Amino acid sequence: MVGTELLLGEVIDTNSAFLAQRLAELGVDVYYVARVGDNRQRIAKLVQEACQRADLVITAGGLGPTADDLTKEAVADAFGLEMELRKEVLAVLEERFRLLETCMSDNNRRQAYLPKGAQALPNPKGTAPGVLLELAEGKAVIMLPGVPVELEAMMDDSVVPYIKQRLGENEAATIYSRVLRFYGLGESSIDSLVQEIMEAGTNPTIAPYAGGGEVRLRITAKAASETEAARLIEPVEEQLLNKLGPYFYGHGDEQMEMVVARLLLSQGKTVAVAESCTGGLISNRLTNIPGSSGYYLQGAITYSNAAKESVLGVDPKLLAEYGAVSEPVAKAMAAGVRQWAGADLGISVTGIAGPGGGTEVKPVGLVFFGLSHAGGTKGYRRQFAGDRLQIKDRAALAALNILRQHLLESK
Amino acid sequence: MVGTELLLGEVIDTNSAFLAQRLAELGVDVYYVARVGDNRQRIAKLVQEACQRADLVITAGGLGPTADDLTKEAVADAFGLEMELRKEVLAVLEERFRLLETCMSDNNRRQAYLPKGAQALPNPKGTAPGVLLELAEGKAVIMLPGVPVELEAMMDDSVVPYIKQRLGENEAATIYSRVLRFYGLGESSIDSLVQEIMEAGTNPTIAPYAGGGEVRLRITAKAASETEAARLIEPVEEQLLNKLGPYFYGHGDEQMEMVVARLLLSQGKTVAVAESCTGGLISNRLTNIPGSSGYYLQGAITYSNAAKESVLGVDPKLLAEYGAVSEPVAKAMAAGVRQWAGADLGISVTGIAGPGGGTEVKPVGLVFFGLSHAGGTKGYRRQFAGDRLQIKDRAALAALNILRQHLLESK
Repeated sequence: MVGTELLLGEVIDTNSAFLAQRLAELGVDVYYVARVGDNRQRIAKLVQEACQRADLVITAGGLGPTADDLTKEAVADAFGLEMELRKEVLAVLEERFRLLETCMSDNNRRQAYLPKGAQALPNPKGTAPGVLLELAEGKAVIMLPGVPVELEAMMDDSVVPYIKQRLGENEAATIYSRVLRFYGLGESSIDSLVQEIMEAGTNPTIAPYAGGGEVRLRITAKAASETEAARLIEPVEEQLLNKLGPYFYGHGDEQMEMVVARLLLSQGKTVAVAESCTGGLISNRLTNIPGSSGYYLQGAITYSNAAKESVLGVDPKLLAEYGAVSEPVAKAMAAGVRQWAGADLGISVTGIAGPGGGTEVKPVGLVFFGLSHAGGTKGYRRQFAGDRLQIKDRAALAALNILRQHLLESK
Repeated sequence: MVGTELLLGEVIDTNSAFLAQRLAELGVDVYYVARVGDNRQRIAKLVQEACQRADLVITAGGLGPTADDLTKEAVADAFGLEMELRKEVLAVLEERFRLLETCMSDNNRRQAYLPKGAQALPNPKGTAPGVLLELAEGKAVIMLPGVPVELEAMMDDSVVPYIKQRLGENEAATIYSRVLRFYGLGESSIDSLVQEIMEAGTNPTIAPYAGGGEVRLRITAKAASETEAARLIEPVEEQLLNKLGPYFYGHGDEQMEMVVARLLLSQGKTVAVAESCTGGLISNRLTNIPGSSGYYLQGAITYSNAAKESVLGVDPKLLAEYGAVSEPVAKAMAAGVRQWAGADLGISVTGIAGPGGGTEVKPVGLVFFGLSHAGGTKGYRRQFAGDRLQIKDRAALAALNILRQHLLESK
C-alpha cells in the first residue's frame, strides 16, 4: 500500500481489506500487508523483500500522473528494468482525454510508461492503467491504482481472472461464499438466534458483519468446485432462513434499493417520494439503479411547513395540531405525494436528524414514515441513534424497507 | 499490526493511522507499516526486519490472553530472549480481577510474562499490559494491545512521554500541516502549474491528493512550534493561491456543501433545487449540514418529462425541440424551481447518468445545469466520465460549485 498519506494516518487504508477478502475467496493466503510512503528507494526495497517471501505481490497506489507517483519506477528499479513508452496505452489515454474534452498534459503521458516486459491492465474507471509484471520462478508483481473504485473494478476485471488462471483448474480447494443480508435485527440478536447453527460445523463457516444499520451473514465453504460448495452451503442457508426469514432481504451485493427496484418493475408499479429530514437521500438511492425511470416518476423535498402545504397539500391544521414530525403529517405527505405525482405508491419521511431540534417528547432520531397506495395510507414510527448523517442513512434504509415489505405483501 | 482478522480484511486497521498521527506530531518519521497474522515465526521475522530498518518499532495486537496472542513470545524469539513471570505485573492483574469479582484463569496469568529485560507499560483500560523492550544501539520495540481504546490511552500515557524523553528537549520538531481544496482542475494540471513551488523547498513540503472529483494540496511544515510552522506555511500558501486562486474553495475538512451553506447563510439567501439525473443527491448534500433549514426550502426531483412540465412549468415545446437533456431545459428548470419554491436562487441539473440512454450527440456523462436568480438565468454544460454513481457524484459537486461561484460573485 503506497502513499505518504497512508503512513501519516491521514487516509485510512481500506484497499488492503478489499484485496484480502477477494484473495481469501480465491483460497489465496495473505501473509503480509505493508505500507510505505512515496519514496522511490523505500518502495523498491519493500517490493524486493515482498517478492522474496511471496509468490504474488500486489501494490496499490502511486500510479497517478504526478511527480510523487513512483510505484512503477520503483518496481522497475527493484528488478533492474528500464521504463518504456507503450504506444497502445498512450492511445487509450489520448482517446479518454478526447472524450472528456480535456487537454492531456505531459504528466498524463507519464502514465503510458511501463517497466520493460510488463503488461498494462485496463482501468475502466480512471486514467492510470494497472501493471502486471511477471518475474522468474513464476513470481509476479501486480500494480493497481490507489483510488478504491478503480482498484476494486480492476481487481475484479483483471486480477481475479489472472489468479484463477494461474491457480489452474485442478488446483483444488477454492473458497466460495454466499452472503445473506438482513434488516431489522441487531448483530447480537442474530448471533444468539443462530449460535447453534454457527457452531455446528467448520465447513461451511458462518461469519456475521454489521454495518450501515443492517447485518450480513457470510457462509463460506471450501470445496473443489462451485457445485460442491453450493451443496455444502445450501442446507446451512436453509437453516439460517428458517430462523431469520422475516428479516432476510437479499443476497450478496444486493442493496435494499435494488430489491425495491426489482419488485416495483416486476409489479409494474411507480413510486413518488416526499422527504423532509432525509433531504433527498431516498430518491437518490432509488435513482442509483440503472433504469430507475421505469418506476421512479418524481419526488419532493419539503423541508419547510409551507412546502408541505403547498406542494403536498398537507392540511395546516395537522401541522398546527401534531407538528411537522408526527404520524398524521407523515401519512398526509405520503397521500399527497402519491396524488401530486400520479404514482401507484407514495412514501414519505419526516423526522429530526439533529443535532439541534430535539425535545423531551420528540428527541433527535425520531422519524415518522407514511406509505400510501390505492387501498389506503399507513403510518410508521421509528427511533434511530447516531449523528445527523447516520440518522439520515438509517431513515432512508427504513423507508426503503417499508416499501419492500408493502410490495411483498401486495404481490 | 498483528492479527489474522486484519490480514483477511475482516477488520479495518485504524490503529496504525492513530499511531502515525501521534508520531508525526512528535516529528517522528514513519517509514513503514506492516501487517502480519497470528503466526509466531512470521511475527518474529517481521520484527527482526523492522528493527534493522528503524530505531523504534511499535507493535499493536496479540497481547490478549488467548492461545493465538503471540506477540510477546515472537518478539522474545526474534532477539533470543526467555519469557519470565513478573510478580509486580501479576499483582496488578490479580487486583484487577478482584475488583471485577471475576475469577482469573491460567490464560490471564500468561499476561504477566514478559521477555527478559523488558519493562511493563500500564494499561488503564484493559488487562493486557504493554511492553517496552530496549535493545542494543538505542533501538527499542514497544508492544501495545490491539483494542483501540487501550492502545490510544497507552500511547498517550506511556509511549509519547517515552519518545519525548528519548528525543530530548531540544530535538523537539513537530509536524504541522494545512490542506487547501481545489475544484475544477485535474491533479496533473495542478501539478504542472505549481511544480516549481512544489520543488522549491523541503520545509514545508507540498503533496497533492485527488479523489471524488477534486484535488487537495497538503502543505506540511516541520517546526519547533505551531507559530513557527504557520510562518513557514503562509508564504507557500500565498504562492499556491496566486497560481490556483480561482480553483481554491476551502481549507481542511471543509466540503463544498459547507462552503455553499456558509455563503447562503451569510448572505441571507435561500435556494431551491430541481434535479433530474442526480436524483436528489444535491438536496441530500445541502441538507447534510446542521441548520440547513436556514437556507434550504424545498426541492423537486423531476425524472419524467411530465414532472418537468407540471411541477416546474417547463414549456413542452422546449422539451420537444431540444430534448430533456439540454441547456434550454436546464435553464427553464432552474427558473421554474425558483418560482415554485419562492426561493432567492434556483439550481437545476439534467443529464445522462447512464449506463443506458447515451447517443453520439448526447453521450453518457453529458450534464446541463441552470442557475436562476433575481437578475436572470444562466446555463452550463459539462461532460463527466465514470460509472452511473460517479457521474451523479460529479454532477452534484459541479452544481454546488456553480452555486458557490454565483454567491461569491454576488457578494
